[in-house]
Amino acid sequence: MAGRSKTKEKILRTALGLFNNEGESAVSSVDIASVIGISPGNLYYHYKGKDEIIVELFADFEEEIRQVLSSPINEPLKLEDNWVYLYIIFEEIFDFRFFYKNQSELIDRIPNLRSKFARILSLKEQTAFSLLSALEDQGHLQFDEGEKAALAGRIAQHFTFWLQYHDLRHGTAPPKSLIDKGVFMTLIQITPYWTNGEGYAELLKDFVSEKV
Amino acid sequence: MAGRSKTKEKILRTALGLFNNEGESAVSSVDIASVIGISPGNLYYHYKGKDEIIVELFADFEEEIRQVLSSPINEPLKLEDNWVYLYIIFEEIFDFRFFYKNQSELIDRIPNLRSKFARILSLKEQTAFSLLSALEDQGHLQFDEGEKAALAGRIAQHFTFWLQYHDLRHGTAPPKSLIDKGVFMTLIQITPYWTNGEGYAELLKDFVSEKV
Repeated sequence: MAGRSKTKEKILRTALGLFNNEGESAVSSVDIASVIGISPGNLYYHYKGKDEIIVELFADFEEEIRQVLSSPINEPLKLEDNWVYLYIIFEEIFDFRFFYKNQSELIDRIPNLRSKFARILSLKEQTAFSLLSALEDQGHLQFDEGEKAALAGRIAQHFTFWLQYHDLRHGTAPPKSLIDKGVFMTLIQITPYWTNGEGYAELLKDFVSEKV
Repeated sequence: MAGRSKTKEKILRTALGLFNNEGESAVSSVDIASVIGISPGNLYYHYKGKDEIIVELFADFEEEIRQVLSSPINEPLKLEDNWVYLYIIFEEIFDFRFFYKNQSELIDRIPNLRSKFARILSLKEQTAFSLLSALEDQGHLQFDEGEKAALAGRIAQHFTFWLQYHDLRHGTAPPKSLIDKGVFMTLIQITPYWTNGEGYAELLKDFVSEKV
């Protein structure tokens, strides 16, 4: 982000790596300082504690994910671009995955994250709805009443809980291949609404043979 | 549960109500004692702190949800019993909803809950798979390769995150009517795999007219 000193940037990148890999609750600001090789006092000069770092990381995440999520609302995707686009969303979330492990705890602790998180969720639903509407307008998908909004909500939920589910179910750090699985589990939810199996089945097959 | 003193039972019921309504992190064991009208020392005589209470509440939850989840694995449901059965699962989760707001935090804090939680998740997937298989065997549902397992996984995820999603999205306490919405959002996921629209559409319509 513009106007940040090199030290601030380094603190943020280091904190993000540690939070993602070791879990936010296991990492203190002293740990962050010691990994960078600066004194805790020096770190404190830049950020008054861990929560300030988290808020600034969230601002970075929000800026990036907003750009990604807004793009198909502004301009519909071509059919073949859908899965690449989903991949980008999952990758973006994966890059800031520590937010997605403990959302509820973080927003209880840092209350001003709550409304920001809710806004991103709402944007995810709008984006999913736009994707589905574009495919419907192009004649690829067909929905009964209420199904499109319900599916858009499910896709937004899937973006939000896909990492946490892995953690609760398996208790291991998410491998990068979980991104492919996330995309696949999104596509397979859309399949049954496809009007003509072929184009979409091809898309899914391409994706599976390449990725899963 | 058998063999519990009246005071223990009272402590557990009070704690459950407070955790559910005010959030587990906002309630201390001193709060629990003061609501019951006993001294903190008396409470401590029965439970050595809040986490012991949580572990025992989890044991209650586990016993109840296991019974519910195992029943259709042992014996397939009749078609018309499916939505009532889903309602029972959602209600059971709602009754212990504080577990579902902050799962990740709780299992980080109380490590022996982790494997128990993972086992319940796995059982949820098996149950959903059994429900779908029974409907498939009866000729009501039809799946392409991989779709049944994927849908079972999604239903298990939906059981698990439905309350948390409401919290993140709306930031309000979940109303009891959220149970109906949870059931509806489960049924509408199954609709597209229905072979003959009528029976199922009727089921869904009955449910909607009665509940939503």
